[in-house]
Amino acid sequence: MAKTYDDLLAKVAACPVKKVAVACAQDDAVLEAVKAAKERNIADAILVGDEQKIKTIASVLKMHIEDFEIIDVKDTYEAALTAVKLVHDGKADMYMKGLIDTKSFLKSVLDKEVGLRTDKTLSHVCVFDIEGIDRLLFLSDVAFIPYPDLETKANIIRNTVEIAQACGVDNPKVAPLAAVEVVNPKMACTVEAEELTKMNEAGDIKGCIVDGPLSLDLAIEPQAAFHKGTTDRKIVGDADILLFPDIQAGNITYKSLVHTAPCKNGNILTGTKAPVILTSRSDEFEAKVNSIALGAVVAEALNNK
Amino acid sequence: MAKTYDDLLAKVAACPVKKVAVACAQDDAVLEAVKAAKERNIADAILVGDEQKIKTIASVLKMHIEDFEIIDVKDTYEAALTAVKLVHDGKADMYMKGLIDTKSFLKSVLDKEVGLRTDKTLSHVCVFDIEGIDRLLFLSDVAFIPYPDLETKANIIRNTVEIAQACGVDNPKVAPLAAVEVVNPKMACTVEAEELTKMNEAGDIKGCIVDGPLSLDLAIEPQAAFHKGTTDRKIVGDADILLFPDIQAGNITYKSLVHTAPCKNGNILTGTKAPVILTSRSDEFEAKVNSIALGAVVAEALNNK
Repeated sequence: MAKTYDDLLAKVAACPVKKVAVACAQDDAVLEAVKAAKERNIADAILVGDEQKIKTIASVLKMHIEDFEIIDVKDTYEAALTAVKLVHDGKADMYMKGLIDTKSFLKSVLDKEVGLRTDKTLSHVCVFDIEGIDRLLFLSDVAFIPYPDLETKANIIRNTVEIAQACGVDNPKVAPLAAVEVVNPKMACTVEAEELTKMNEAGDIKGCIVDGPLSLDLAIEPQAAFHKGTTDRKIVGDADILLFPDIQAGNITYKSLVHTAPCKNGNILTGTKAPVILTSRSDEFEAKVNSIALGAVVAEALNNK
Repeated sequence: MAKTYDDLLAKVAACPVKKVAVACAQDDAVLEAVKAAKERNIADAILVGDEQKIKTIASVLKMHIEDFEIIDVKDTYEAALTAVKLVHDGKADMYMKGLIDTKSFLKSVLDKEVGLRTDKTLSHVCVFDIEGIDRLLFLSDVAFIPYPDLETKANIIRNTVEIAQACGVDNPKVAPLAAVEVVNPKMACTVEAEELTKMNEAGDIKGCIVDGPLSLDLAIEPQAAFHKGTTDRKIVGDADILLFPDIQAGNITYKSLVHTAPCKNGNILTGTKAPVILTSRSDEFEAKVNSIALGAVVAEALNNK
């Protein structure tokens, strides 16, 4: 079971090297991340995009990219379709966003012919390795789905459970978060949290233990659960997956962790046939490399299904 | 201008010693905090409650409380009214919750005869001193108002600005937070964030600079603002006050800071005639002492108005 990013890297090292297809690779930050991933044996890459621009960036950054396969496609969207088709056809294991707007990139992910569409909900998972917490935390959805309804929340849990299991967390504990740990009819998210708990008990959400609503301290901090005298819950500070009531709570918490806590993080888009890496410019270099490592772990798990 | 809790303590040390009236002081954690506050010259206290129980707790904890004035009132709510009246009458400077349920305590705060009611909105302010951030951050509302509407958000800002000013931050920068930094009609909090910004520009919210919507990274991290090429905003990673869209986002973020970031924090209730300290059992000992220090700073500012 991976408890840290080092554990994830060890998992990656134990598998055949995966390959990431980059859409519009003419992006300095993405090139640097992909280069580092190759050097660290995390993943190889196929660079799809404007070859001349890619080589110019590499030259400016004094980066050797001779070892990478480059497919020269100048048109942005055509480059995306070319890259995603490589994953669709099994010639690459994961798909990564380069210098292309998010909307067009997602359109290529969902393309019916060459994309990675499934019948699942698309959702975003962010995986944190935080100092002082003895396991990985899987946060969702902090970036993609604004206001999930009950069924969408159930789907987010299902997607995130798959990612946790790929990381070796076999029966993850899922905390649907709220400001409080009791149902309050005036707070819709607490009512939904209880519903999700019942759906899990009824077998509608499998492979995990759901217990909500929970405040964050009771979800992640055993001491807090102890101080509050919590004894009748399935989660007592030992949650693996944190489900957020909406994107505002998720995104603000995510950014507070990134900018104030000593931690490592990476993130992927899931609900697709293969892992999709959609890091943003504001993500740190290491977060981009971690995201590729996370993608490789998930790709390996999908291969073994 | 106070930039850390050490600065706040220096401010406290430079003023006449304040006095806190404790409602139902027969609570071990509250007694320990009050005792530490006295030893550190942060504040004196009047202990209102069941004298025998107070003395028993002190004896069990081997705590010398001979220096404290004790007013023996056995009935819980009567003790609260007695304590709050001390503040109302100017015999104490701030009011603190002991072993009494929050609902009854707040009822005493709002008592028309002897309470601390004003025509302002009651709101909660949490003040953080976070490693790596060069100033205090004032968060609201993370504990008290579930789903503030536009006018309530304006009132929360007004209350929080007073607290920031009491701490020496004369013209605080206020970031109404969201998952994104642009208005999205499908996200009500971004529309309200823009409204609040306009209300500030129109002079309806004074003594501060409001700029929203803002994502947390753009609000607190100058590097993030730089990376995103933000140049046309009034806030570029230098916000003092963080306004949350609702209590879910506020509370989860608050607890993520407390449990994962290297930080100090304290909190008070405001919109009252005098500072009200309403720490919960799950607050750390130091957070309780910090809250008393914060109350003392605010009480001094109110005295000088």
